[in-house]
Amino acid sequence: MPASYAYLGPEGTFTEVALRTLPEAATRELVPMVSIPAALDAVRSGEAEAAFVPIENSVEGGITTTLDELVAGEPLMIYREVLLSITFALLVRPGTALSEIKTVTAHPAAQPQVRNWLKANLPDAVWESAASNADGARLVQEGRYDAAFAGEFAAARYGLVPLETNIHDAENAQTRFVLVGRPARPAAPTGADKTSVVLWQRTDHPGGLRDLLGEFAVRGVNLMLLQSRPTGAGIGNYCFCIDAEGHISDRRVAEALMGLKRICREVRFLGSYPRADITPADVRALHPGTSDDTFMSAADWVARCQDGRF
Amino acid sequence: MPASYAYLGPEGTFTEVALRTLPEAATRELVPMVSIPAALDAVRSGEAEAAFVPIENSVEGGITTTLDELVAGEPLMIYREVLLSITFALLVRPGTALSEIKTVTAHPAAQPQVRNWLKANLPDAVWESAASNADGARLVQEGRYDAAFAGEFAAARYGLVPLETNIHDAENAQTRFVLVGRPARPAAPTGADKTSVVLWQRTDHPGGLRDLLGEFAVRGVNLMLLQSRPTGAGIGNYCFCIDAEGHISDRRVAEALMGLKRICREVRFLGSYPRADITPADVRALHPGTSDDTFMSAADWVARCQDGRF
Repeated sequence: MPASYAYLGPEGTFTEVALRTLPEAATRELVPMVSIPAALDAVRSGEAEAAFVPIENSVEGGITTTLDELVAGEPLMIYREVLLSITFALLVRPGTALSEIKTVTAHPAAQPQVRNWLKANLPDAVWESAASNADGARLVQEGRYDAAFAGEFAAARYGLVPLETNIHDAENAQTRFVLVGRPARPAAPTGADKTSVVLWQRTDHPGGLRDLLGEFAVRGVNLMLLQSRPTGAGIGNYCFCIDAEGHISDRRVAEALMGLKRICREVRFLGSYPRADITPADVRALHPGTSDDTFMSAADWVARCQDGRF
Repeated sequence: MPASYAYLGPEGTFTEVALRTLPEAATRELVPMVSIPAALDAVRSGEAEAAFVPIENSVEGGITTTLDELVAGEPLMIYREVLLSITFALLVRPGTALSEIKTVTAHPAAQPQVRNWLKANLPDAVWESAASNADGARLVQEGRYDAAFAGEFAAARYGLVPLETNIHDAENAQTRFVLVGRPARPAAPTGADKTSVVLWQRTDHPGGLRDLLGEFAVRGVNLMLLQSRPTGAGIGNYCFCIDAEGHISDRRVAEALMGLKRICREVRFLGSYPRADITPADVRALHPGTSDDTFMSAADWVARCQDGRF
């Protein structure tokens, strides 16, 4: 049995397209799952080597189902990320004209990205939500709806044709996906990495969150995402999902995490992995005093002071 | 025509129940709307005096549709908040037994709150999403599904009976609702108030968010909610929806907002309004040096120093 990657299915969704951009996906069996929790449970149970799921969207923000799964339960770790630009095609049965479209369907997450287009082009069409964009395409194939918003790549699979392509209300609409596995040693740093953690505050007091962020800031570590998620203990009780620039083997990141471990009630490490979005940053030039060299020579200096050898 | 309040409909949802707890609702015409944007648009267009919509849930976190509507477009202001405990009843047509239930429905937001109950009691039931919990109840009445999760109060309206009540996976599951109107002078402080703002950073740099939070922290202002929302300018670009303790007429809050106005690219004031959750806090005892008195005597002292009269 080849090692398998579970992913948020069905086939023909943006998730599958994003997964196939990873070179390692070519050597794995790719198994579509019905939901994000199902994909991650397959990893936790050992059924799948890893799971590939959406985690952040430039229009909708954090994908809360994925974040909540990573925050709770058996620990998992992020190994890779993929950024995919999202544009929709309006898929119809061959021969359908725009003027004949009375009902449209897609996954609810698609709605904010096609709302303006719909208002301008099909103001009277009735929207019905589908379980996924691919499932919406299938329902159009079956004649249940007139048109579906989905990736253009889904047309052929469901015997549909794109009546309109490149539909996206927000410029640069992107979704970020992650490959998640069981905890193991993170891959070596690439020079352009990202570290994900979840933080639970010890007590709620003025400046509490600012103190947590200070552990990053005083070491020149930039944050790329801060998403609060309910702890389940009632309104106002939140933990914080944070993505920070850098790798846990970078001294500045390691020291920030040690500081957080001291002051937080709990810290969950979610992995250090290559960034999908940019070329390597020159940390030395950007933030003086935050490179590994400066951390090490500062540690040497303190040791020499402690020895009276400064 | 009486002044009207628009709310997220249809009738018989938790939103309507929460709205009716406000004394002022008794003297208004209450108009159900099909969506949160529709309810808020009714206020923007002047059709309704105010709109009542959910904004935060202790299981799901911030209600992103509401937050995004408040963040963008014509400015609106929050005047009141209501906290409602959410427990579900399983509603069926009279005579239906638990063993006969093959399909269940509710709004997608209900799913995480009934998931464990479903797994334990109806492991084979198929879930279908409804546009609202009340709409799910209507579809059960029409025979399209076997059972709906909704508030017990919805049973009578749709000719259904509660087969099971008090269903809630998370203890203390609560939803927070807000009454939103056009901008005007906020009501006077009650001593237990909350101030909501949206902040946009000027530039992204290490410590940037910490600096924003510092404006609250150095003045002893506690935060009750920090929810990041995408600005639409691509992955990693966020603004911050913040709820802070206190009223804009409290000196510590006013000074924090002035500090933010100086350092942020943009600050949107969303209102100061009475807190629904607690009895008044004794700010003087809790955080020495943060009461109006201490702010005023400190201002006097600096003025005297500037005059050489210290």
